[in-house]
Amino acid sequence: MPLSEFELIDRFFRGRGASRSDVRLGVGDDAALLECPPDRELVAAIDTLVEGAHFPAGSPAASVGHRALAVNLSDLAAMGAEPAWALLALTVPRADERWLEEFSRGLAALAKEFGVALVGGDTTRGPLCVTIQILGSVERDTALTRSGGAAEEALYVSGTPGDAAAGLQLELSRLEVPEARAARYLRDRFLFPAPRVALGRRLRGYASACIDVSDGLLGDAGKLARASGCGVELDYEILPVSRMLAEAVGPERARELALTGGDDYELLFSVPPSRVDALLRDLPVEQWRYARVGTLRREPGAVVTRNGSVIDFSHYGFDHFAAGR
Amino acid sequence: MPLSEFELIDRFFRGRGASRSDVRLGVGDDAALLECPPDRELVAAIDTLVEGAHFPAGSPAASVGHRALAVNLSDLAAMGAEPAWALLALTVPRADERWLEEFSRGLAALAKEFGVALVGGDTTRGPLCVTIQILGSVERDTALTRSGGAAEEALYVSGTPGDAAAGLQLELSRLEVPEARAARYLRDRFLFPAPRVALGRRLRGYASACIDVSDGLLGDAGKLARASGCGVELDYEILPVSRMLAEAVGPERARELALTGGDDYELLFSVPPSRVDALLRDLPVEQWRYARVGTLRREPGAVVTRNGSVIDFSHYGFDHFAAGR
Repeated sequence: MPLSEFELIDRFFRGRGASRSDVRLGVGDDAALLECPPDRELVAAIDTLVEGAHFPAGSPAASVGHRALAVNLSDLAAMGAEPAWALLALTVPRADERWLEEFSRGLAALAKEFGVALVGGDTTRGPLCVTIQILGSVERDTALTRSGGAAEEALYVSGTPGDAAAGLQLELSRLEVPEARAARYLRDRFLFPAPRVALGRRLRGYASACIDVSDGLLGDAGKLARASGCGVELDYEILPVSRMLAEAVGPERARELALTGGDDYELLFSVPPSRVDALLRDLPVEQWRYARVGTLRREPGAVVTRNGSVIDFSHYGFDHFAAGR
Repeated sequence: MPLSEFELIDRFFRGRGASRSDVRLGVGDDAALLECPPDRELVAAIDTLVEGAHFPAGSPAASVGHRALAVNLSDLAAMGAEPAWALLALTVPRADERWLEEFSRGLAALAKEFGVALVGGDTTRGPLCVTIQILGSVERDTALTRSGGAAEEALYVSGTPGDAAAGLQLELSRLEVPEARAARYLRDRFLFPAPRVALGRRLRGYASACIDVSDGLLGDAGKLARASGCGVELDYEILPVSRMLAEAVGPERARELALTGGDDYELLFSVPPSRVDALLRDLPVEQWRYARVGTLRREPGAVVTRNGSVIDFSHYGFDHFAAGR
């Protein structure tokens, strides 16, 4: 017997995320009722994953659930916000109980980790597509934005971009990595990205601008720079790449994937020269894992330099409509 | 040249809805920053429309934009809430500028009418699918829910359910209505539903429970009754149907469409006997256009009676997975 929409939400999503005392009414009515925290601003983002565009057909359901929430958590991380509640719009071709159970498990585990309550949902039938709307809050007037940067500020990125892009290539069988441990690490970086919420919270007061890296370092650095009314120069020589990635694809291809690969969900942020010492002192690099990648420049545009010369990249990050995949 | 994701959001959605002073940061960053109104609860809902499931392939783009917001406004109406902000997740097979312009026009017109600012969006490529997340607020402890009803309370519905279902049949060329004015009226009731936000706001203090009628009167009355821990009896003889609908399909079929058709986006609400006189006095029926349809009963389940006898319906409202269409 096919499951009804009512049963789907009830069985697989009600009460699965974190429990929060600020949820007055969660899943099950026409809308959710939530307590706004005082002296804070509400922060809202929405992101969609479409099968075949954002993840390969046949991806593990737990990964689809994890990533659908992770990409939204990453948006909140980039604002320096604290996540609170999520609503899910799930379109599935059929009510496959096993798939739904796994999807829900992946989503709920990450929701619990970040204290997010699932407060509403809509399930519809159609080609597989997951939209999550996330809500959180940030102390008044402290949110990070893309537009606060200025020329000559230092640019940093968290983690090691490029890993997830290699992981996707592995998932698509377009890359072979003989060493099992490295292959598993790279795959996991695509399948189960770790949103940098704690770092985003800590960067308030240090970073002048911040963006999450979802479309490749080069493209997203360009977006931050453009929003800040300047340009950006990335330094090829210092780009952080993981040892796993460098060994799997070689150091050159590793940096290319870091620059243009996408799906990293790391934070890219600018820091004024006057705040760099405080940043490095208060957020030790060994603990918070970030690295310098370049500098905001007065001249518009995004360039990569190597030993002082500008090098050319044929495509500038992932664009759903211009490039596709 | 194909449009990039960035240009899509910027060109077709930025600044298109209402302007609101409580939007600190709208479309264009990783997330929106919003001012929570003091002494109110936040109200959040999410709803998806999938081409071929919720509207016929080839539907007018302005109608798709209008309906995507209308179904969400209707959810807020059912809570007695005041809408404020919306985020859009739009999946389209290609960047068709004319379609996007029309879609945006339909969405923006309704957003302006209800004072809703469009504060965020995500555009992706894939099968046509529109998810809107709506946010609003309601004065603390005054929200309407589905669960407040009790046995022997009167049940009312706004407007004339069944029209939209006939309109959909017309759109699908499964129904012929010779009179052009009637055909146009019925089509418009499907293509451009009018969410009952003002009525929902006014019902606070009178209605004990409320739900929006999206899946047919019978199914949604059953949901309200179940959430309220009781049953419901709808009286076939008094079901309100429009003259247009009765003339187009005959009075019997008209009532069947009202009971099981769906897509009405009217409000169905229960009123305790002690509040009926006040309701009828303070919200004149001629102005607010609602009608009695039945009574909540102690016995669980949803039944339709005609001259005192229970009549049978083969299907109980639209269910995306059980029934499909």
